[in-house]
Amino acid sequence: MAAFLGIHVLYELYECDAALLDDVEVLRRTLYDAVRSVEMVALQEARHQYEPQGASVVILVAESHIAVHTWPEYRYAAVDFFSCRTDIDPERVRVVLERALKPGRIDSRLIERGHRASPHPPGAG
Amino acid sequence: MAAFLGIHVLYELYECDAALLDDVEVLRRTLYDAVRSVEMVALQEARHQYEPQGASVVILVAESHIAVHTWPEYRYAAVDFFSCRTDIDPERVRVVLERALKPGRIDSRLIERGHRASPHPPGAG
Repeated sequence: MAAFLGIHVLYELYECDAALLDDVEVLRRTLYDAVRSVEMVALQEARHQYEPQGASVVILVAESHIAVHTWPEYRYAAVDFFSCRTDIDPERVRVVLERALKPGRIDSRLIERGHRASPHPPGAG
Repeated sequence: MAAFLGIHVLYELYECDAALLDDVEVLRRTLYDAVRSVEMVALQEARHQYEPQGASVVILVAESHIAVHTWPEYRYAAVDFFSCRTDIDPERVRVVLERALKPGRIDSRLIERGHRASPHPPGAG
């Protein structure tokens, strides 16, 4: 059993194709592909296209979410993927993002969320 | 001008009131209060109540989002708040979360997203 309840992966996508980042339908398809790549099921979504540019999409997955926010003017997209399944492979999501949004570079960070041994566990001692 | 495009704050709420964590309406109201506390405007939301317990809510804010995922059985909630406004005060959101969900402890991390000086800036050199 993992020592934590969820994982949160933050992807920084630099030098993307700006036109792709400004297309909310491209972003939606990309996130649904990412969800499928780790064998999860989407429940609901929220999305918005900004003026003059940029878009946001969030998909709620069972006890998880994946979100993207884009800055076409900087060719930058911020993606984050939260999962209550601690055995998923963040590389699969990274591959989907690379193929879809053509970044020159992706940086990613994996953050463990909700340590089971919290500093003051209830009933401890 | 900030050196980055967004901030992402991750809050770990331990030892919460378990009944509050299992009530999707309480969670929705809490997130809307959090959005208002930093003078943002909600655009859309997605939510889900799980069986036998737990809930998720995500609210899309202009170029931002706030999400909560709860584990009532562990009295734990994971909240994350992404903002394209780098001048917001994450303490305001923390105060709202503390009042609403009664955690015994909150840990938070602030992560800078999208550095303007990316490792290979387009047009550099």
